[in-house]
Amino acid sequence: MSKRIPRSPDNDYSPDIIAERQAFIEENTPARLHHTRQFSFEADAMAGNIENMFGVVQVPIGLAGPLLIDGEHAKGEFYVPMATVEGTMLASYNRGMKVIRESGGVMTTVAGEAMQRAPCFVFRNARDARDFEHWLVDNFQKIKAVAETTTSVGKLIEIEHYNAHNFIYTRFDYTTGDAAGQNMTSRATFVACEWIRENYPALKNYLLSGNFDTEKRTSAVNSLKGRGRRVTAEITVPRDVLERNLRITPEAMHYGQGITTLASFLSHSSNNAAHPANGLAALYLATGQDIANIGESNQCTVYNRVTREGDYFFSVTLPALILATYGGGTNLPTQRECLEIMDCHGKGKAYKLAEIAAGLVVAGELSLGAATRVDKKTRQNEWVDAHERLGRNR
Amino acid sequence: MSKRIPRSPDNDYSPDIIAERQAFIEENTPARLHHTRQFSFEADAMAGNIENMFGVVQVPIGLAGPLLIDGEHAKGEFYVPMATVEGTMLASYNRGMKVIRESGGVMTTVAGEAMQRAPCFVFRNARDARDFEHWLVDNFQKIKAVAETTTSVGKLIEIEHYNAHNFIYTRFDYTTGDAAGQNMTSRATFVACEWIRENYPALKNYLLSGNFDTEKRTSAVNSLKGRGRRVTAEITVPRDVLERNLRITPEAMHYGQGITTLASFLSHSSNNAAHPANGLAALYLATGQDIANIGESNQCTVYNRVTREGDYFFSVTLPALILATYGGGTNLPTQRECLEIMDCHGKGKAYKLAEIAAGLVVAGELSLGAATRVDKKTRQNEWVDAHERLGRNR
Amino acid sequence: MSKRIPRSPDNDYSPDIIAERQAFIEENTPARLHHTRQFSFEADAMAGNIENMFGVVQVPIGLAGPLLIDGEHAKGEFYVPMATVEGTMLASYNRGMKVIRESGGVMTTVAGEAMQRAPCFVFRNARDARDFEHWLVDNFQKIKAVAETTTSVGKLIEIEHYNAHNFIYTRFDYTTGDAAGQNMTSRATFVACEWIRENYPALKNYLLSGNFDTEKRTSAVNSLKGRGRRVTAEITVPRDVLERNLRITPEAMHYGQGITTLASFLSHSSNNAAHPANGLAALYLATGQDIANIGESNQCTVYNRVTREGDYFFSVTLPALILATYGGGTNLPTQRECLEIMDCHGKGKAYKLAEIAAGLVVAGELSLGAATRVDKKTRQNEWVDAHERLGRNR
Amino acid sequence: MSKRIPRSPDNDYSPDIIAERQAFIEENTPARLHHTRQFSFEADAMAGNIENMFGVVQVPIGLAGPLLIDGEHAKGEFYVPMATVEGTMLASYNRGMKVIRESGGVMTTVAGEAMQRAPCFVFRNARDARDFEHWLVDNFQKIKAVAETTTSVGKLIEIEHYNAHNFIYTRFDYTTGDAAGQNMTSRATFVACEWIRENYPALKNYLLSGNFDTEKRTSAVNSLKGRGRRVTAEITVPRDVLERNLRITPEAMHYGQGITTLASFLSHSSNNAAHPANGLAALYLATGQDIANIGESNQCTVYNRVTREGDYFFSVTLPALILATYGGGTNLPTQRECLEIMDCHGKGKAYKLAEIAAGLVVAGELSLGAATRVDKKTRQNEWVDAHERLGRNR
Repeated sequence: MSKRIPRSPDNDYSPDIIAERQAFIEENTPARLHHTRQFSFEADAMAGNIENMFGVVQVPIGLAGPLLIDGEHAKGEFYVPMATVEGTMLASYNRGMKVIRESGGVMTTVAGEAMQRAPCFVFRNARDARDFEHWLVDNFQKIKAVAETTTSVGKLIEIEHYNAHNFIYTRFDYTTGDAAGQNMTSRATFVACEWIRENYPALKNYLLSGNFDTEKRTSAVNSLKGRGRRVTAEITVPRDVLERNLRITPEAMHYGQGITTLASFLSHSSNNAAHPANGLAALYLATGQDIANIGESNQCTVYNRVTREGDYFFSVTLPALILATYGGGTNLPTQRECLEIMDCHGKGKAYKLAEIAAGLVVAGELSLGAATRVDKKTRQNEWVDAHERLGRNR
Repeated sequence: MSKRIPRSPDNDYSPDIIAERQAFIEENTPARLHHTRQFSFEADAMAGNIENMFGVVQVPIGLAGPLLIDGEHAKGEFYVPMATVEGTMLASYNRGMKVIRESGGVMTTVAGEAMQRAPCFVFRNARDARDFEHWLVDNFQKIKAVAETTTSVGKLIEIEHYNAHNFIYTRFDYTTGDAAGQNMTSRATFVACEWIRENYPALKNYLLSGNFDTEKRTSAVNSLKGRGRRVTAEITVPRDVLERNLRITPEAMHYGQGITTLASFLSHSSNNAAHPANGLAALYLATGQDIANIGESNQCTVYNRVTREGDYFFSVTLPALILATYGGGTNLPTQRECLEIMDCHGKGKAYKLAEIAAGLVVAGELSLGAATRVDKKTRQNEWVDAHERLGRNR
Repeated sequence: MSKRIPRSPDNDYSPDIIAERQAFIEENTPARLHHTRQFSFEADAMAGNIENMFGVVQVPIGLAGPLLIDGEHAKGEFYVPMATVEGTMLASYNRGMKVIRESGGVMTTVAGEAMQRAPCFVFRNARDARDFEHWLVDNFQKIKAVAETTTSVGKLIEIEHYNAHNFIYTRFDYTTGDAAGQNMTSRATFVACEWIRENYPALKNYLLSGNFDTEKRTSAVNSLKGRGRRVTAEITVPRDVLERNLRITPEAMHYGQGITTLASFLSHSSNNAAHPANGLAALYLATGQDIANIGESNQCTVYNRVTREGDYFFSVTLPALILATYGGGTNLPTQRECLEIMDCHGKGKAYKLAEIAAGLVVAGELSLGAATRVDKKTRQNEWVDAHERLGRNR
Repeated sequence: MSKRIPRSPDNDYSPDIIAERQAFIEENTPARLHHTRQFSFEADAMAGNIENMFGVVQVPIGLAGPLLIDGEHAKGEFYVPMATVEGTMLASYNRGMKVIRESGGVMTTVAGEAMQRAPCFVFRNARDARDFEHWLVDNFQKIKAVAETTTSVGKLIEIEHYNAHNFIYTRFDYTTGDAAGQNMTSRATFVACEWIRENYPALKNYLLSGNFDTEKRTSAVNSLKGRGRRVTAEITVPRDVLERNLRITPEAMHYGQGITTLASFLSHSSNNAAHPANGLAALYLATGQDIANIGESNQCTVYNRVTREGDYFFSVTLPALILATYGGGTNLPTQRECLEIMDCHGKGKAYKLAEIAAGLVVAGELSLGAATRVDKKTRQNEWVDAHERLGRNR
């Protein structure tokens, strides 16, 4: 007979109920809770972010930087807090930031913004579905008005529609201000769907989420249309900066990227980059983002070339950066401090944080891109060596 | 002129250098560090897991369960620590666990294990490449012997080889005991590659990582051949259990999954599930895994059907669960406690943790799969409502 | 020293030059041309369809049908000419048509139409690219007017735009009347691009075809947005019709399709159907279509379910049917006759032919879907047997 | 009431029954058959290649070349018969062949061969499935012996196995001599499956084709493991040859290919080439191949770079060339003559034809790769112009 985890009807974050849960764990499992029970704030501060709370996980944060960004929202040097348990990773990103500084900075551009809910509308047959698709286009303004009654922040900017069989798969695209916006868009879309149901009798049924969002996983549709913020970061690294810092020529970088891009194409990989997930995960964790979004935010393309002048042009496009600077996890005590290190806490900062994130990815790509090649003379490999020196292979 | 982050030549985890970094942050950024500076252990404990450490991020952990598992390594009920900042998520998984308990448990099977390094071997032309491919197959035992000189734990079990142009892309597949094993495999593969270079003169060059691993991102090759542990979790939910707990019939669940699977196919999504990344991210974070691995571990397929008896059969296959129970982040103080809650800390526990992870995913899928549909009578939607009630929409 | 193939400055289709080429072949290769030299028309009739003509290939055509279609453009019974060298294939489609007739016909719906050219616009950096993307949207009407000056038939209905790095990839979507329209759209788009170049000085460069069309190959973007005609064909096969003709139950069909759809997802296949390429290739070849388009037209999704009444609902969506009934190969003597069999030659027939093509695919899917399963009692397999009986295994 | 197409119990290819069908068509459809009824051979010659034959389609064939190949099986100059109805296409390939000749030929390498049947084995649960997977590996030699009892030509060389849920998806990989081999492998695999069923009682069921082959459509698994013949064709085009013939520099070609490869990655396209389907379809049609195979054979990757010496290296890998030189459609009168032009008819020629096909693709890629760019001075575009001049835009 399984025992129920203690819950409280009044305040599920009171010290008593948390202590009760800790006792429950020690009684019913082999664990002894010395560290998870220690946190530096009132548990109440966690309300709305977790259920059945009994403690915290403490993950070390390191400081990388400065990262020199030539953005429209982030301008200048930023120190970047990165939370991780993977040795050598921050050091690698740090090395990339040095290359960026010596190159005069990484240019960042936010090219799009949309948060989705993706209802699927079901019809008796494909003919009814097609007719609805036309109606949907014609009635966009009305639907927009209905959806926006539920939120002061969210704006419905587009309804993407994809026709297949007797279904119209849609993506309701919103701008959501500085919140990540998944919840806000759920409510708005639900109300819009109910309005559609009432006003379009031929609609047989609908699913509030037809999986076309495609939340927390990579997809072609996210790559094409974007999700969260679509950001490009690009840089021209002078030949001497590259060679001095990374001991590799522009031609060798370009050659290596050609081989890895081909690998990504052949293996049907979701990106042709080296490791955007590493930097993004460390930043997301430090700053109170939903780290499950790494499942989609690490979608990425790399483009690179040797310029006519012999320098190395490198850029990444991240089509699905899901980031918030306001609300939710960004208000948690440690997470807020990390955002403040970059002056990214609060309203009006989401584009800035998105630009920093994209710049961070460039730092990591430049560094690892160089590290996986083997030195022809010494037969040393920096990547292996770094892990020997800094990491847990010791 | 950018200022350098303080580092110490002697001990980069000493209280002094950490305090120096904290002061550096407060001096050079808007942040005031009240909470990130508070942690319950000696910073030395973090050595090898982070560079430039200045503090910790504290993420709340909730307890879900019990999760009833009928595995080969995990047997019985488990309480699952989940660290997250997303309200309602743990509650949703918890609901799924109740369904699992009432169905007699979720059956889990580890069907494969491999950790990769993926060198790309470069030749003058495709003919040389093809000839090398045959040589590689013929010399597997020798290469295996060389690679295994570098590790007492790792075993080279296969060298996958993919021929394209003048390249042979490979994946060196290892078993790595209870460590995630990325570093161990790097060293072993590097040594093997150098041996190949010395013994195969026609080899023009190689990249230690040719991107075919495909680390920290989803891919077809990972889906087909696996990475980390390949685990299936499956369950038959009796009709009445499903209807009573989730207010949905087996037929409606199957119908919904048909629509969402089609969406996943059309959108070229990396999985046809609802949200495996959520549960996995929360478990990974609590237990000291590298959360960047969410980028690949959330690859997943769902298969479901209504049984002849009218019950609901549901299963997930996770081809790329990257998990450790020993070494690295699993030794950190809070993370270790979380592993101990499931009796999953230390050697010989990785398969067990993999089974728990897969069972957890089933819990989340059952719960959310039901929640996104709209009640025909009340016109309520549980998903929206849950976020209103528990989450941060309040 | 290689010999030049004979060409004529005056009329490259005159009997003399063709005879000269035939002699050239017999002199310079082992071939003796008895059959390729025999054709039933004046070679002049081929002008514009081929260069360096020396003869014809004769491919047998069989007649399948009748195919009962409940379309908006094709209504009633059609005999379908299928040209192929694969024994048993036509017989299999024929069997499917019988099922369709006994089910009351297959319903067809054309849900979209677009033929693309896909220029890529290149900018100095991502910021310039993004700004251009907005300009492009704002200036659609002007660009449309320019493009349409080059054609009396083609209409520019949309410019899709995809942002990545310093590029704006576009798809200029046209309707093209009853021609397949690839050439018409090339000219219109080229003129539009030149106009853009003159009117948008920040444009650095452009490629007339940036590969986003994605002509003659499958892609996610074609699947999502369509190319040529997007057509759905759907049918409810009564249980007894299915069982009597194909010796399989609706449940077994649905179960089999669940397994093959999962296979398609896992293998990252371009469709989850059984063999749409077979029927389409035979129809395309008989009717003078560009058979290279099979490379994209075989993109297809299948959706199926057992209805509440216990019957079998089955449908296909073909997002990229490239078909013409007017101009080009449709005017060739034998091809034209094949079109006339279905009353599909000339203007105003392209939608009709598209509906027949989609209905044909359903016939093939139903038949083969049933054939690959093994009879539990006799341990016979129809698929193997048919090839033994009708095909070239004899 | 639909009328039945005439069939004959004795000889379905007799002149009488064919005449009867022609009369049937003229009676029941608007078509008048002047040309389709004219063919240069006895209809009996078509037996096993078609059912319900009533005539032929005549498609013009042009001669391209010579194509200079430096293969292991094809050596020297080849004139290539191409059947098509698309004006300018052959001329474009011809231009590419000139570039190849002036570059000293295209090097071709067949790197793999396998024809598949792909049964799916179904089990009670994933644990049974996994255990079977091990048994399958252990019993390969026995299964191979059973399969090979059915064929004197086919050899079972591997059983690929992919684990998912309660299924083991397999690919039985055969070499099939000079036949395309789809039918031969069906029978052999069916017999093997029946043997497995008898010898492995825990097997619940199997599907003879579980869609993992992935016949007649592109897929990642075909790209990775190959199907039919895997062939690479590669060439280094000297700078002056490229510039003189195609009016483009190696750098501009490489730059263009970088942009189109990125497009292919973003659009999730099945190849990153320009138009392999065109040349392959024309060759397949002329030589009696199953043209539906274009659906899979056009899978292709391109790799290119500017060499250290400033020349242009270009290569294609075609992982799934399905080609025969013996049996089936290759024996038809006109098709056989086309094969003989290249001395490719009969046993022992399939590798040779595969090498010619791959070389042909290179010719087409070089030519079109250059043609889609716009001349900076004249503002002319060759691609548009060629269609104006040679094609049907006239």
